[in-house]
Amino acid sequence: MTAPWHVFDPDAPTQALAAFVAQSRAQDIPPEAIHEAKRSLVNFFACALSGSADPDIDRLLKVVAGVSGTGKAAVIGRAERLNPLDAAFVNAASANVFDFDDTHPGTIIHPTAPVAPALFALAAGRKLNGRDLLHAFVLGVEVECRLGNAISPGHYRRGWHITSSCGVFGAAAAAAKLLRLNADGTARALGIAASQASGLVEALGTSAKSVGVGNSARNGLLAALLAQAGASAPERSIEGRFGFLSIASDEPQHDRMTGGLGRTWEILVNTYKPYPCGVVLNPVVDACLALRETHPAIVNRIEDIEVRGHPLLKERTDRPPVNTGREGQVSARHTVAIVLLQGAAGIAQYQDAAVRDADVRALGSKVRVIADNAFAVDAAEVRITLTTGETLSQSVEHARGGRERPLSDADLEAKLAALATEAAPWLDSSALAAHLWQMEEQHDLDVILCAVTPRS
Amino acid sequence: MTAPWHVFDPDAPTQALAAFVAQSRAQDIPPEAIHEAKRSLVNFFACALSGSADPDIDRLLKVVAGVSGTGKAAVIGRAERLNPLDAAFVNAASANVFDFDDTHPGTIIHPTAPVAPALFALAAGRKLNGRDLLHAFVLGVEVECRLGNAISPGHYRRGWHITSSCGVFGAAAAAAKLLRLNADGTARALGIAASQASGLVEALGTSAKSVGVGNSARNGLLAALLAQAGASAPERSIEGRFGFLSIASDEPQHDRMTGGLGRTWEILVNTYKPYPCGVVLNPVVDACLALRETHPAIVNRIEDIEVRGHPLLKERTDRPPVNTGREGQVSARHTVAIVLLQGAAGIAQYQDAAVRDADVRALGSKVRVIADNAFAVDAAEVRITLTTGETLSQSVEHARGGRERPLSDADLEAKLAALATEAAPWLDSSALAAHLWQMEEQHDLDVILCAVTPRS
Repeated sequence: MTAPWHVFDPDAPTQALAAFVAQSRAQDIPPEAIHEAKRSLVNFFACALSGSADPDIDRLLKVVAGVSGTGKAAVIGRAERLNPLDAAFVNAASANVFDFDDTHPGTIIHPTAPVAPALFALAAGRKLNGRDLLHAFVLGVEVECRLGNAISPGHYRRGWHITSSCGVFGAAAAAAKLLRLNADGTARALGIAASQASGLVEALGTSAKSVGVGNSARNGLLAALLAQAGASAPERSIEGRFGFLSIASDEPQHDRMTGGLGRTWEILVNTYKPYPCGVVLNPVVDACLALRETHPAIVNRIEDIEVRGHPLLKERTDRPPVNTGREGQVSARHTVAIVLLQGAAGIAQYQDAAVRDADVRALGSKVRVIADNAFAVDAAEVRITLTTGETLSQSVEHARGGRERPLSDADLEAKLAALATEAAPWLDSSALAAHLWQMEEQHDLDVILCAVTPRS
Repeated sequence: MTAPWHVFDPDAPTQALAAFVAQSRAQDIPPEAIHEAKRSLVNFFACALSGSADPDIDRLLKVVAGVSGTGKAAVIGRAERLNPLDAAFVNAASANVFDFDDTHPGTIIHPTAPVAPALFALAAGRKLNGRDLLHAFVLGVEVECRLGNAISPGHYRRGWHITSSCGVFGAAAAAAKLLRLNADGTARALGIAASQASGLVEALGTSAKSVGVGNSARNGLLAALLAQAGASAPERSIEGRFGFLSIASDEPQHDRMTGGLGRTWEILVNTYKPYPCGVVLNPVVDACLALRETHPAIVNRIEDIEVRGHPLLKERTDRPPVNTGREGQVSARHTVAIVLLQGAAGIAQYQDAAVRDADVRALGSKVRVIADNAFAVDAAEVRITLTTGETLSQSVEHARGGRERPLSDADLEAKLAALATEAAPWLDSSALAAHLWQMEEQHDLDVILCAVTPRS
C-alpha cells in the first residue's frame, strides 16, 4: 500500500493533515528528508546547549521547577530533570532563545524548536527509538511549515510570532505520531493545539518570546496527550468558520496545506544559521568578514559605512544604539561594528558587554542602512569610506547558511562543537554528533539525552 | 492621595493598565464592586463544583496530574491536589465547562473563570486574605473586560474565544496584584500574557474549549510568576505595532481601555445565568417555563412551535438534532422541548441522555426559529400552535439573569445550593456562601478552599 495522498481534501485540511500523519509509514519518508532531519537535530542541540546557559532560560526553568518540582525528563545542557511538559517548554525556549536555530525560508518559522523538544520529552521513561523519532519529527515539521505556508506572509506581518503559533501544531502532530494516535486522535490533537496557538512578534528580544516558543512545544505535547486520553476537539479546527485560519490570516492559501502532501517535504528547504543574529544580517556579516580579511587594519581609519540590502534589512535592523545582546542580534550597527572589530559573529559577540563596548558603539555610529529593492533578502553590500577618502566595498550575492550556500554537515558539526565548548565543556560533541548521524540505529533515546545533560 | 487616573495615557494602554493595577489601593474599590465580586465568586464556586464532576474535566485533571504529579493547591470539588498552575488550569476549565458561569454583556467574556482560579491557586501554602483577593479579582476583571471592550465585537466575531484570549490578561493582572508587583512588573506580566493569548470559538462544545479557558488562568498566573522572577516583556505588548491588538482586532477602540479607569467598574455589569445554556436561549427558557405553568398539559397536543428572537438566536442555536448534552446547550430545539416536557432547565436537562430522549427529540422536531431584528438579544417570543388549531404565545422582554432582571443574592445562593447538592453532596453550601459573603473578613483563604474540597 502506498501513501494515499490522492485522497487528501484541500477543503478539509485538518482531517487531511491528520490522516496524512497517522497513515505515514517510516519507509514513506525519503532518505534525504531523514538526513535533513538529522542535520536539523545537530543544529538543534547546538542551539539548545548554548541557550541553556542563558539567564533568561535559567529564570524560566527555576519558575516552572519551583511550581512543579522535578521529574524524569532531561533538560538539555542542565543537570535538573523536569516533568515532560516542563522539559519540552524549557528545551524549546533554550533552542530558540538566541534565534540561532534553523529557519524555514518561506515562513521564517524556526521549525525544530517547537517539535523536537515535544518528542524528546516523550522519551522520558519510555523506550523510544531513533527511527520513530525521526519519522515523527519530519511529519511535525511538515505540518507546521505547511500551515505556515498557507498563511504567509500576512500572518507574521500582522504580528503573529509564527514559530510559536504554527509550532504548536507541529509539536502536536509529531507527538501524536510518536504516541501512535490514529487519524481521529491526531485531528483532535491538532484541534486542541489550535485552541492554544499564540505568540507575538512584538515579544521578540524579550523573555516573552521564549515563553511563547516554550509553550508551542509544551502545549503541542499536551494536546497529543489529551487527545490520547480521549479529549474532544472541533473537526475543522484549522479551516472552520471560527477556526485558526479565521483568526490567523486574511487570505489563507488552502492548497498549500494539502498540495503534494507525501510527495514534497518541507524539511528539505530548512536552513541553518552560521551566525546568531537576525537572518537578514547574514549577508552583512559575510561582507564584513570578507572586508576584514582583505583589509585587516582599517578600523581606526573608517569615516562612514554604508550597508545596502533588501528593504527588510532596514526595517528590521536599522535601529538606534542598543543596550543588550538580545537587541544587538537585530542591530545592523552593532553587527557591522563588532564583526569589523573582532572578525567573528558568535555568541560572544552578542553578549550585553560586547554591545556596550565603547569602541563597538563608536564604530557602530558610522553605519547607515539603505533599503534597495534590487537586493534579494540574502544579498547585501557593505561600502566603507576611509578617512583618506578611499572606498572599499564588498558584495554578497547569497549569504552563507541560505539554501544557495547551505552549511555542510561538517559546518553543522563544527557549530555544535563551538557552542558546546562554550556552554557545555563536559560534553563530547563528536560522540553526540555521531549518535545523531546514526540516529535511526538508536534503540533507546536515553543515550542521546544522557549525552546532552551533565552528570549531576 | 487619590487614584491618579488622570495620568493614564490612552496611547499607552499596556503601561496605563499596569500602573492602574499596581497603584490601586483596596479603599479605591467601591463597596458595590466588592459586593458584585462576591456574587461572582458565589456563582463561580457553584459552576466549578458542578463542572468538576464532568468527564471532560476528569480527563484534563488526570492528564495533567499524570504528568506533574500532585501538589498543594486545591482543585474545586475534588480530593486531588495539584501544583498551582495545574490547579488554576483545572479550576478554570471546571468553572466554564457548562457555560453556566458569568457573562460580561458587552463582550460575552466569562470574566471569573480565568481570574479567580489564578488567585485561589496562589493561596496554596501562603497566608492570603480575602480582602486582598477581592481587590485583585476586581482589578483582573477590569483589565480583561476593558481589553475585551476595546476589540469587540470584531474579535469574537472573527473566531477568537474571548474568554480565553482576554482572560489571560485578567489572570495575569490579578495574580500580579496579589503578588504585589509594581507597575513595571505588572506590565511585564501583561506582556508575557499577551504572548500566550489564544482560544477559538470553533472549539465551543469540545474539550479544546476547556483547554483554552484552563490555559487562560494557568498562563496568566505563569506570566505573573515569571514577571516576579524578573522575566522581560515588550513595553507595548498590547498596542505595539506587532502587539496583541494587531493580531486580535481590526478596529480597536483604545479609549475603551483607559477611559474612566478607576471611576467605572466592569464588574458592576457582570451577569449570572439562571440556566446552563447559551445566553441567547435564556429568554426562550423563560417563555417556555411560563407557558408550561399557565398551560400545564399541552405537550401531547403540540403541532408547531415558533421561536422568534434576535438574529443571533437563530445564528447560534438553530441547528439540526444534536447528540450530546454539550451541543444541547446551544440548541433551540432541545432547549424548547426539554423545558416544555420537564419544566426545568438545569444541569440534568443538558446531559447526553436527556438530549437523546425520544420524546424530547420528537417535540424538538416541531421547533422553528425565526430571526427578527425587532428583538433585543435578551428578548424572545414562543408561539405554540396546538393540534386543535389554538395558538398560545408568551413574550419575554428581558430574560431572567440579564442586567434588567438580575439574579438576586438569594438566587445565586440557591444556584450554589442546587449545583452543590447534585455534584458535591458532602458540601455545606450555606456555610460556603456565608464565608464568601464575608470574604473580606477571611484572614486565610484555606477556609474556603477546604470547604470546596471533599475530605480524602
